[in-house]
Amino acid sequence: MSREIEVCLSPSLIPSYTIEGRIVVVIDIFRATSSICYGFENGAEMIIPVASVEECSSYEGKGFLLAAERNGEVVNGFDFGNSPFSYTKEKVAGKKVVLTTTNGTHAIKEASAAHKIVIGSFLNLNSLCSWIENQDEDVLLLCSGWKNKFNLEDTLFAGAVVNTLKTKFSHFCDASIAAEDMYLLAKDNLREYLYKSSHSQRLKELDIEDDIQFCLKQNICTVIPVLENGKLVAMERQ
Amino acid sequence: MSREIEVCLSPSLIPSYTIEGRIVVVIDIFRATSSICYGFENGAEMIIPVASVEECSSYEGKGFLLAAERNGEVVNGFDFGNSPFSYTKEKVAGKKVVLTTTNGTHAIKEASAAHKIVIGSFLNLNSLCSWIENQDEDVLLLCSGWKNKFNLEDTLFAGAVVNTLKTKFSHFCDASIAAEDMYLLAKDNLREYLYKSSHSQRLKELDIEDDIQFCLKQNICTVIPVLENGKLVAMERQ
Repeated sequence: MSREIEVCLSPSLIPSYTIEGRIVVVIDIFRATSSICYGFENGAEMIIPVASVEECSSYEGKGFLLAAERNGEVVNGFDFGNSPFSYTKEKVAGKKVVLTTTNGTHAIKEASAAHKIVIGSFLNLNSLCSWIENQDEDVLLLCSGWKNKFNLEDTLFAGAVVNTLKTKFSHFCDASIAAEDMYLLAKDNLREYLYKSSHSQRLKELDIEDDIQFCLKQNICTVIPVLENGKLVAMERQ
Repeated sequence: MSREIEVCLSPSLIPSYTIEGRIVVVIDIFRATSSICYGFENGAEMIIPVASVEECSSYEGKGFLLAAERNGEVVNGFDFGNSPFSYTKEKVAGKKVVLTTTNGTHAIKEASAAHKIVIGSFLNLNSLCSWIENQDEDVLLLCSGWKNKFNLEDTLFAGAVVNTLKTKFSHFCDASIAAEDMYLLAKDNLREYLYKSSHSQRLKELDIEDDIQFCLKQNICTVIPVLENGKLVAMERQ
């Protein structure tokens, strides 16, 4: 057993890591990857991550739900942004969604050279970890951060994955160690810990406390979103 | 009081931070910035940080001590590398040194747009913090990392600075919060904590345990190295 798990704390650090041949888990806890997991759990057929608001707009009138978020808010003129409550069964079951967000969709694009790109959040933590455990590839946990800066919530989730899987891997980078230690500090009350976070404060100003609480729920989803030909779909279970 | 202190966890993240008008503290605990502090404490007249081994070589025969380190080892043909024990009074008092290292001198170059660049290490922690406290500018603590990846030891030092100065600043980024929490976890026995670190393991293989122990000593220096016209000198005290 000599699998390696690394944590990349920001998309800006990707050039320093090996992507090719690895499983990359994209993490954007507040809120893109939480909402993506919830959307597939609720029957979304497909979510297409796109880099720009313009690219998102280009899907208009073609039978897609258009979701665009910038700086934490729904972009004017779009169906919705990245609140998980926009990804309920009533709204997304059987639907195709096109999504652009400040951080998460950017990270997905940056990881395009990976063997496989999957989507992680507290919502599907155990399911994701069980699947990773049964693969052969090394793993890179890619935190989307906030505008390429480190953020606490994505790092805490990376730490939760490291903590869950640590007996299955033999190599850890310093960022894995730090992320796990932070998770162990915070795990008894993630919300309380995150009050210290600048991004969490910013989200609080956006009046989305319900979203934050929801995105910190663990294991309410079993789906693992996976990128196939540029589109996210629910992974088929073996 | 509305000064901001931020922690930049790798030189690769610099583009996401404001450098202009700020004090940038360059941190490369194992071992460049520790050795620089110790060298000035021991009377070095000047240390010129250069990016490449070739540039370092170009100073040959001009009255400089030439120091070059790559991957933790002294480059063949050079007087010394970045071990603090090469920067004793006997070796550097009154001397001009030209230095290139894997990480630290790279970080100094990347921060060149700063209002002021100073050098931090556990060796001059209190002296540095006292000086920062009496300035007006915002502060960026720049971790040199290991080949642009996050590392634990630089982050722990950044956390020590945040912890010392926190009542003097009003704004903190998520990386400051994380660095401080990690420092608080590790502070009672930094060496013990760092056994988990991949870089520390690598350094152990290089058989430089004495260097590591030395670089974790606190407050044995009072000097603050500062960059002036591309050259590091000891800051004159007010």
